Amino acid sequence: MLNKDKTLAHFCAELASSSPSPGGGGAAALGGALAAALGEMVVSLTVGKKKYASRESELLALGERAAVLREDLLKMIDGDAEAFAPLARAYSLPKDAPDRTEILEEALRRAAASPVRIAELCCSVIELMEGCAASGSLLVLSDAATGAALAEGALEGAVINVKVNTALMRNRSFASALNDRMDAMRREYAARAQAVRRSLGY
Amino acid sequence: MLNKDKTLAHFCAELASSSPSPGGGGAAALGGALAAALGEMVVSLTVGKKKYASRESELLALGERAAVLREDLLKMIDGDAEAFAPLARAYSLPKDAPDRTEILEEALRRAAASPVRIAELCCSVIELMEGCAASGSLLVLSDAATGAALAEGALEGAVINVKVNTALMRNRSFASALNDRMDAMRREYAARAQAVRRSLGY
Repeated sequence: MLNKDKTLAHFCAELASSSPSPGGGGAAALGGALAAALGEMVVSLTVGKKKYASRESELLALGERAAVLREDLLKMIDGDAEAFAPLARAYSLPKDAPDRTEILEEALRRAAASPVRIAELCCSVIELMEGCAASGSLLVLSDAATGAALAEGALEGAVINVKVNTALMRNRSFASALNDRMDAMRREYAARAQAVRRSLGY
Repeated sequence: MLNKDKTLAHFCAELASSSPSPGGGGAAALGGALAAALGEMVVSLTVGKKKYASRESELLALGERAAVLREDLLKMIDGDAEAFAPLARAYSLPKDAPDRTEILEEALRRAAASPVRIAELCCSVIELMEGCAASGSLLVLSDAATGAALAEGALEGAVINVKVNTALMRNRSFASALNDRMDAMRREYAARAQAVRRSLGY
């Protein structure tokens, strides 16, 4: 069963359990999807209002981007679980298995790539919130601010889930370059998310 | 249908729609529930391990608190929708309806009380993460850090949803006292969530 077809209660119960997935990466992906959905809500409650008619085409474009981001982030809950499976298998190899080191290293790269993608999508959600804050109806701007807050938390969560993998990589130059990239991403986009909230007075 | 019985895809689609609820408060509540579930996951993956046997009773207490917080936050998705309904009704009263001002003020207080409760629960989740970071297995501490990040985002989202209501209250001393309380809560607990992440090296 796809994670997006589970009920909220079921998904949270699985997250709480000792099963390896869903885990932190999947929770971050869902947090990002909630933020994207709030962006869509801003659009849904602004489009069609006379007062905002001049922004119609811009709003429709924002709404389309938001819907794609919501879907992509919901899919990444499963993507994260799939990316983690080879790592779990690699860890269960006997310590003296041939190629264990290489298999583990490759599994760590694959497991890291999924939260990298989730982090990138969360950055796109923060860009979306900048558009929603600029073009949304005054009545629903708190939802754009809330979306920015949730996307920032999800981005932070995704970055943590990259770093838990890079910490274990043997190729330190690859690991360190990826860590630097994530730190730069987090710095820039956390500041942009906070700027969205501040610009709306929150 | 209770929100917790909706699928992730269905809930996100409703959030994205122009229907008044679920909205930002409900999304923040779900974000907090995901964080609480990550705390439980830390406990689930630590309890029963020989290495952590001396922390068993502390871990079980953390796990029980996490399960209660998860349930309470999932319930608050519906609580937030119920608290918003009287406000929507108050706004639809004719401008010259008798007692409109008093009815609206009372509805705003009620609508604000729900995200206040969500914010308080998110603070409790951050306290839970402090416990998880201190007592959880080394192998799952990234989930405690992720939980702290998601709870911080959810707390921020809840505070925004209090302030969207206090901004419209006529009783400015009540509104301003509540804003101050929320700012103090956010300041203290955002710092504590960040300290959890830093203490774990993220």
